[in-house]
Amino acid sequence: MAVYTEVSDEELIEFVAAYDIGDVVSFKGIAEGVENSNYLLQTTRNSYILTLYEKRVRASDLPYFVGFMEHLAAQGIACPTPLPGRDGIVLRELCQRPAAIITFLEGMWPRRIQPHHCAELGTALARLHIAGSSFEMHRKNDLSVRDWRPLYESCRARANEVDPGLNAILDPEIRLLEAQWPTALPSGVCHADLFPDNVFFLGDKLSGMIDFYFACNDFFAYDLGICLNAWCFERDGSFNVTKARLMLSNYRKVRAFSDEELSALPLLARGSAVRFLLTRLYDWLNHPEGALVKPKDPLEYLGILQFHQHVRGPNAYGLA
Amino acid sequence: MAVYTEVSDEELIEFVAAYDIGDVVSFKGIAEGVENSNYLLQTTRNSYILTLYEKRVRASDLPYFVGFMEHLAAQGIACPTPLPGRDGIVLRELCQRPAAIITFLEGMWPRRIQPHHCAELGTALARLHIAGSSFEMHRKNDLSVRDWRPLYESCRARANEVDPGLNAILDPEIRLLEAQWPTALPSGVCHADLFPDNVFFLGDKLSGMIDFYFACNDFFAYDLGICLNAWCFERDGSFNVTKARLMLSNYRKVRAFSDEELSALPLLARGSAVRFLLTRLYDWLNHPEGALVKPKDPLEYLGILQFHQHVRGPNAYGLA
Repeated sequence: MAVYTEVSDEELIEFVAAYDIGDVVSFKGIAEGVENSNYLLQTTRNSYILTLYEKRVRASDLPYFVGFMEHLAAQGIACPTPLPGRDGIVLRELCQRPAAIITFLEGMWPRRIQPHHCAELGTALARLHIAGSSFEMHRKNDLSVRDWRPLYESCRARANEVDPGLNAILDPEIRLLEAQWPTALPSGVCHADLFPDNVFFLGDKLSGMIDFYFACNDFFAYDLGICLNAWCFERDGSFNVTKARLMLSNYRKVRAFSDEELSALPLLARGSAVRFLLTRLYDWLNHPEGALVKPKDPLEYLGILQFHQHVRGPNAYGLA
Repeated sequence: MAVYTEVSDEELIEFVAAYDIGDVVSFKGIAEGVENSNYLLQTTRNSYILTLYEKRVRASDLPYFVGFMEHLAAQGIACPTPLPGRDGIVLRELCQRPAAIITFLEGMWPRRIQPHHCAELGTALARLHIAGSSFEMHRKNDLSVRDWRPLYESCRARANEVDPGLNAILDPEIRLLEAQWPTALPSGVCHADLFPDNVFFLGDKLSGMIDFYFACNDFFAYDLGICLNAWCFERDGSFNVTKARLMLSNYRKVRAFSDEELSALPLLARGSAVRFLLTRLYDWLNHPEGALVKPKDPLEYLGILQFHQHVRGPNAYGLA
């Protein structure tokens, strides 16, 4: 679940009074999301999301995240928009945490991914990348190739608790990624966490994207690698090349990508698999007894990594 | 959290199509409640709650719970009402579980209980008891005095893991409750779980009660004992006699209670304390590693029990 902070009625009423959004009629914690506390807030006017930013989000990064959402919305990209209070301020404080009220985005995230979802996602991701090119703030990806080794070292001794073969796979893999990671590819603002639960659909149509709290400046093709991994593998671990082809070909219709990007894709997808494998491994080994969030299985990403290790080139992803 | 069952988009759309409530625009798991999976469902028409009844609720009891909500709503008591589908059927099946769509009740449960909340609660509970008198179904309370010993026996050997003095307190207490439990007091349908998170307020006014899944036929005064324990103790364990006086005196303005009920109140409050102490103890000792719901502290109810053990009579609750 994702309610770490209990907001009292008095605190909520006082907080909402700073906005011109009517009176509170309902306030319910949402059992989704992992990093922050999210509430669905209904007022006499409309529905909103109230987010309290918990400690895994650095307060100094919030202006970037919130600014990016505002920028995207201004560019016509469907995403939640942070609301300013009557005083024009967007980031406020509630229960000793940074907090914001965000517009409510209609739609449902797809529990069972179908090929048409991946087609829509490709288009939307390309539009997001283009819209972000005029966003002027910059945030380094702090979960990229230089960050994997320290993260791995903090788990390495206990990695065998999860899988006895993990070190033998990760030791050379991280060495290879460090050696071969590209240094110059088209880059800009990436979502960097565009899993299915962050993408909403109404019927067959993508209605918007949420959760920009990993957004950062990085290679666009790395963002595609993250989406390949998050959307195109079936529950049994098999790779669905139809989904990948639809995602990539629809992306390219909106934003052409270069031969360099294309040929880097297998390596970037490996890097993305390592990034999520490592953060999941860390959470798996370090989640406190009685934690409210069930840690995700790191080994799901081991399978994904091994798929990409055996890929001969980008045509494995369905591109002609 | 309270989402044990993931509902896929296809299953949801198909389920909602059986109702005349418009099209789905949003569907979010709610991080409240313990027994069932609850989703906030927004359609082009309105907001609703979709509940999937999980295994702790006996399917054979559902017609009683749902019938009682319908009965209360028909009597003008503010509570969620189960909606029939186009075919008139209220209890359906979703993801292999009994499921129902319930009307959305506005309001927020009070995180910090104030005396005026208790006054409102007393009035509402009395009205609920009166409204229930014309409800014709019957359900035995299966967490009453005869059920405590078997529940206790299943935890007794490990009770010292929670508190080394627990057996020395519970052994004689359960014996005493079994010997002295009343056999004839005014009775009818009780809510039997009317904790603050089941009572909604809009501003200062009680806007309704929810979660009727422990409702049963029992002594009305036992229901009051449950509310005394759930609403009138402060976080530091102290008893707030002002809150109790307001609750009880407002209850009596709507439904007079007899001298027998009044003098039984300390014993019934002890019984209520034992009931919640035991179920919490059981959950504490038996909650699976990695469970999504944090078990509640059984010892909170040990303090409440010990308060009532030292009460000399019902005037301790602020009644003249």
